[in-house]
Amino acid sequence: MSLRNIKNITDRRNFIKKEKRIVFKAITCYPKEMEQAQTKNCENMIGAIQVPVGVAGPLLIKGNSAKGKYFIPLSTTEGALVASVNRGCKAITNSGGVVVKNEYVGMTRGSVFAVSDLSQGFEFKKWLESYPADFSEICQTTSRHLKILKIDSKVVGRNVFVRFYFDTLDAMGMNMVTLAVQKIIGFIEKHTDTKCISIAGNYDVDKKPSWQNFILGRGRQVWAEAVISDKEMKDTLKTTPDKIHKVCLNKCMLGSILSGSMGFNAHFANIIAAVFLACGQDMAHVVEGSLGITSTEIIDKKLYISIYLPDLPVGTVGGGTYLPSQKEMLQLLGIFGGKGGENATAFAEIIGACVLAGELSLLSSLAEGSLARAHMSLARGGS
Amino acid sequence: MSLRNIKNITDRRNFIKKEKRIVFKAITCYPKEMEQAQTKNCENMIGAIQVPVGVAGPLLIKGNSAKGKYFIPLSTTEGALVASVNRGCKAITNSGGVVVKNEYVGMTRGSVFAVSDLSQGFEFKKWLESYPADFSEICQTTSRHLKILKIDSKVVGRNVFVRFYFDTLDAMGMNMVTLAVQKIIGFIEKHTDTKCISIAGNYDVDKKPSWQNFILGRGRQVWAEAVISDKEMKDTLKTTPDKIHKVCLNKCMLGSILSGSMGFNAHFANIIAAVFLACGQDMAHVVEGSLGITSTEIIDKKLYISIYLPDLPVGTVGGGTYLPSQKEMLQLLGIFGGKGGENATAFAEIIGACVLAGELSLLSSLAEGSLARAHMSLARGGS
Amino acid sequence: MSLRNIKNITDRRNFIKKEKRIVFKAITCYPKEMEQAQTKNCENMIGAIQVPVGVAGPLLIKGNSAKGKYFIPLSTTEGALVASVNRGCKAITNSGGVVVKNEYVGMTRGSVFAVSDLSQGFEFKKWLESYPADFSEICQTTSRHLKILKIDSKVVGRNVFVRFYFDTLDAMGMNMVTLAVQKIIGFIEKHTDTKCISIAGNYDVDKKPSWQNFILGRGRQVWAEAVISDKEMKDTLKTTPDKIHKVCLNKCMLGSILSGSMGFNAHFANIIAAVFLACGQDMAHVVEGSLGITSTEIIDKKLYISIYLPDLPVGTVGGGTYLPSQKEMLQLLGIFGGKGGENATAFAEIIGACVLAGELSLLSSLAEGSLARAHMSLARGGS
Amino acid sequence: MSLRNIKNITDRRNFIKKEKRIVFKAITCYPKEMEQAQTKNCENMIGAIQVPVGVAGPLLIKGNSAKGKYFIPLSTTEGALVASVNRGCKAITNSGGVVVKNEYVGMTRGSVFAVSDLSQGFEFKKWLESYPADFSEICQTTSRHLKILKIDSKVVGRNVFVRFYFDTLDAMGMNMVTLAVQKIIGFIEKHTDTKCISIAGNYDVDKKPSWQNFILGRGRQVWAEAVISDKEMKDTLKTTPDKIHKVCLNKCMLGSILSGSMGFNAHFANIIAAVFLACGQDMAHVVEGSLGITSTEIIDKKLYISIYLPDLPVGTVGGGTYLPSQKEMLQLLGIFGGKGGENATAFAEIIGACVLAGELSLLSSLAEGSLARAHMSLARGGS
Repeated sequence: MSLRNIKNITDRRNFIKKEKRIVFKAITCYPKEMEQAQTKNCENMIGAIQVPVGVAGPLLIKGNSAKGKYFIPLSTTEGALVASVNRGCKAITNSGGVVVKNEYVGMTRGSVFAVSDLSQGFEFKKWLESYPADFSEICQTTSRHLKILKIDSKVVGRNVFVRFYFDTLDAMGMNMVTLAVQKIIGFIEKHTDTKCISIAGNYDVDKKPSWQNFILGRGRQVWAEAVISDKEMKDTLKTTPDKIHKVCLNKCMLGSILSGSMGFNAHFANIIAAVFLACGQDMAHVVEGSLGITSTEIIDKKLYISIYLPDLPVGTVGGGTYLPSQKEMLQLLGIFGGKGGENATAFAEIIGACVLAGELSLLSSLAEGSLARAHMSLARGGS
Repeated sequence: MSLRNIKNITDRRNFIKKEKRIVFKAITCYPKEMEQAQTKNCENMIGAIQVPVGVAGPLLIKGNSAKGKYFIPLSTTEGALVASVNRGCKAITNSGGVVVKNEYVGMTRGSVFAVSDLSQGFEFKKWLESYPADFSEICQTTSRHLKILKIDSKVVGRNVFVRFYFDTLDAMGMNMVTLAVQKIIGFIEKHTDTKCISIAGNYDVDKKPSWQNFILGRGRQVWAEAVISDKEMKDTLKTTPDKIHKVCLNKCMLGSILSGSMGFNAHFANIIAAVFLACGQDMAHVVEGSLGITSTEIIDKKLYISIYLPDLPVGTVGGGTYLPSQKEMLQLLGIFGGKGGENATAFAEIIGACVLAGELSLLSSLAEGSLARAHMSLARGGS
Repeated sequence: MSLRNIKNITDRRNFIKKEKRIVFKAITCYPKEMEQAQTKNCENMIGAIQVPVGVAGPLLIKGNSAKGKYFIPLSTTEGALVASVNRGCKAITNSGGVVVKNEYVGMTRGSVFAVSDLSQGFEFKKWLESYPADFSEICQTTSRHLKILKIDSKVVGRNVFVRFYFDTLDAMGMNMVTLAVQKIIGFIEKHTDTKCISIAGNYDVDKKPSWQNFILGRGRQVWAEAVISDKEMKDTLKTTPDKIHKVCLNKCMLGSILSGSMGFNAHFANIIAAVFLACGQDMAHVVEGSLGITSTEIIDKKLYISIYLPDLPVGTVGGGTYLPSQKEMLQLLGIFGGKGGENATAFAEIIGACVLAGELSLLSSLAEGSLARAHMSLARGGS
Repeated sequence: MSLRNIKNITDRRNFIKKEKRIVFKAITCYPKEMEQAQTKNCENMIGAIQVPVGVAGPLLIKGNSAKGKYFIPLSTTEGALVASVNRGCKAITNSGGVVVKNEYVGMTRGSVFAVSDLSQGFEFKKWLESYPADFSEICQTTSRHLKILKIDSKVVGRNVFVRFYFDTLDAMGMNMVTLAVQKIIGFIEKHTDTKCISIAGNYDVDKKPSWQNFILGRGRQVWAEAVISDKEMKDTLKTTPDKIHKVCLNKCMLGSILSGSMGFNAHFANIIAAVFLACGQDMAHVVEGSLGITSTEIIDKKLYISIYLPDLPVGTVGGGTYLPSQKEMLQLLGIFGGKGGENATAFAEIIGACVLAGELSLLSSLAEGSLARAHMSLARGGS
């Protein structure tokens, strides 16, 4: 007998129990309605992992879609993270809030096709880039929420890499995009002499750090900025603009340069991971969210701080967003479900704002020399 | 009143409830003993997020520390992932199992110091690299489980970047390493004219993709390999060695090259994220785990497949490992707690083996053209 | 007295002679008409460096602009390079020649502007990207050969990076582009509240290896391919398709991946440097020419080999092209001077073809194990 | 008849003349003794390319091996470059000179070997890294100037990449290293079951931009720094420390980061290329010389500027160094020929110092907004 043949959670758990002589108790603890996850989110399901979730805020956000004060849920096991982000929220909110901007790039899928030689490759590229209206129609047949935005392609030897961009509204959309591209590939193979080698050719680029995504973007791109008041700098952050600026230059710029990094920031990944986990996002996308830049300046003796997230795939429908606890967290942010793309945009803006709070707070701790002290009292391993 | 002043989970939840006029139900569902997380893992805790966990396996592993058949827990919300890894496990196990190798690099912290000029910088570097026995002693005062392994340093202008390497046994160890480095910095500042600008100078490199970690490693490095039998290729993977090899070359090599990626693999991050979440790891480290290479060869008409994870920080003690459900998952793998480093090594080997299973299965789906079909039946957005 | 005050070559030489008690003889040897270089190409000129130039070929090229058999001049001091490229030319020509494709990206200049905040940054970006026809007119006032093609911009904090693309016809064009951008900046500063921080903001990217140029291109992009006949493989290259393919995979793909390189090729830079030197190009652009990919495949047991040069800035007018010996080399290729862009395109195609010949020959030597032997007899240090 | 069968320069020239109906005159102009280049540096030689050479300086250098005032030869066709570097030399010399440091990494060759599986790979790695004294002896048999320094190796799948480091004294040494490695490979293949796939496996990394060389170095690494006096800032550079610092941050840091570049500098490649060409270096190594960092700080209202060249392969013997004009330029620097490594070290230091002068001057022009004006008067296309 194998796992795949067992049809319910309890029986699977019992099977593993017996095989491995182990007792499961904690993983049996989850809301009843989560059981449907076994048919949609997680095969061979035997239970649930619980991760603590805390809240940072309020954070005053001035975005296009996200406006007002937000309490932001962070699910993490790393002590001191929530406290640190919370401190950043306080300093920013009391300084007048964070301005956020975003641009929509779209969800991408990058397939690779085989051609017979360069000539055929360039003909194919030309055909593709003046792609027939058929492509749009095909998209619509797979999902009425899906719109094709753009097609980029690159010939290398006897391969043509094609990057399809789609508008997926409030969904992160990797899934629906894959279905649409599969249909488009069928059309392409029927109407040309090319053959698809792989629907996913690492030209997307999905769940890997890449300069293509850094430079051209993926999902949404977010910018956030704040100027910190003297009072907050002194009372809340307990350091000076000059010291923070010096840490930012030496760590986020020079240190990352010396290390050949794509993350020119203090710890984007910590905040991204915690919000993603709380809100039912695909955790492998944390990789993409770790890319980006934190920069600081001194303006009239005050600290100006900004962040840039070039590669942020997020969604408020689909995936893990409908799971009971995750749904509550999206509701806490007022962005659960579909709203013509606006919920996901607001979500991206909230994340950008929260990332700024996290950066500000950690850079302050580093500038002040208190990171290790925070660890000692709050048990945290930061970045 | 602010969140920080509220001292228990329920009161915090009520505070947020009131502020945001929202009802929380699902997040209240967690094992009682998880409440201590609020003092160690997550400040401002209001409850828990539940994520489904499934099991893939058995996977026959032939490592140095991990030996035998394993059922591997994967916590994810991405449909089809567990099923896909499970298929890979089956094909590998029935083909004789996966051989795994590992090397211990150690946990690193990369600080940056200010010097007055190049001359002082090089003197400091020299002093550091013939570092006094005092450093070792200092380490021991912060944790008896901690051993300093090596110090690398690099001068740039009036800054010296110093990368400390530590043996942290079964702990991922970022936290204990930070404490030790803080003390070492105190010693350095007392005995030299340098001043620490930042204890964490992105020279670690923590939670960012970086060539430094790719080339020099961080935490543990893992290699895994398998040769797939004809029967499994045909019956389980339903494709051919040549097709998989072609996808691997065009996707994992050429596609990633064209995209300026550091991930020369199909979807390391998916497996890393799912195992990390199940086993209480720091989710921001998924970024580092996404780096690495999958390579294939045809040997005697059979598929040889191997993976290389250069940068894998993991632990079986500390962090989120002691949380109720996470602990059960580590127990399922037989590696919960401290064992002189061997549990964490076994864990790294299990992850490497599981990553190989995930790569094999996804490359097969891509070769066969069935990725989208898997999505349709299992609702998954893969890579 | 200082060098800058001396007005002719001989006097300068005498000045240095006296200062350093050294006798110059060889550097006095150059064609009389070269003296005008001191006013256009090289200040403080004291003479000339002579570098040997050899010829490889004939190479049968099937491009859009370059068609027919070419003898290609290579100026180098590295023994065995010309012989090696010559062997590649022979193998390719006797196998039916090399097919070449190209795309024109345009010469770029990437300036950086200061804005007051993100909001102003995005307004500026919007204004720029719907840039007024004035920009085109401004260009025309600086050179009638210059056409603005495109403007890309990116906001980061209080900076906006702007990448201007120009059609510079047969000129490499960095110089004329800089003049035009200077004028455009004047216009921008007059009509907006932004201020240019630097006309050259490493967003071009000029003379540095960069993923931006790899992904988006600069100057011209070139592709070349050939299939090698069995006879040439055996008689000229003395190895097998399989062996070359294996070297290519392990060196150009895997080796470069492991090394975090942007050059996925055997030795592009050798050929680029030698042709550039012979033909009066800017030698610092060799850096950009070193980027790119060599890939091989086995088709019907024959070797298919292709190269891709994503970032190739070249010119047949301006710079060093009019110098006496350099001009003769361009004349040898039949592409000296301006021809509406076609000469420079032909030049790029010739370079691409020659690079292919160089790659084929070195990969063959490596496959056969004869690189060191070639060194011994021809004194060369290759790649 | 083919080129390869023609045995002297004139006959070859005549052959090409006839084939292409072209008259050569300028390339016939070179010192008689250069003819021996055809047997050592350049096969199929038909003449010489002359490139103007100018001089910048004096530059006051305070290195370990290079000490005193130097006139530095720059061979280039790009107007304004020599004038610009000359200005930098003046500002630095009058401010007290440039301090230079260097470290010797050694010339590397990175070969790739085939093994049967991971187990054999790790055994091979172990054997290699405790490599037998035999390796040293083998080196000595190929050249008494050669010493093996270190061996690094990396297993990936069924391949082992091995990076050999050698001390080559005053030679750049790629050639002699290749000969030695060829012999070592013979020894390895005889004493193990491995087989060399390619002596050069892009793990060197030769003539390609790479993070491996950036992080671990190749050839020599050089650092240089200077503090600019108020008088020179005002009179010679005609701008302010703050403006230069701002350009450096936005161009060399932020601009290069945004572009995914490995060159965090203004125009290293320009200076490297011009000195290399004047002094008989391998021009393809300009690629490696383009890597590195320029950083600035304000100290007591003065500008501190420093450069770091991580990857600089140079030599004062072998290659093109003995050619008549090149030799004179090395003599001008007082470093022609072998001197137990000290000449090449002094050369590296001189280059580092000159690069600093070039960076300072260009950053000043950019800060002042005069780059385009320099172009107009001196016809230059800079960076």
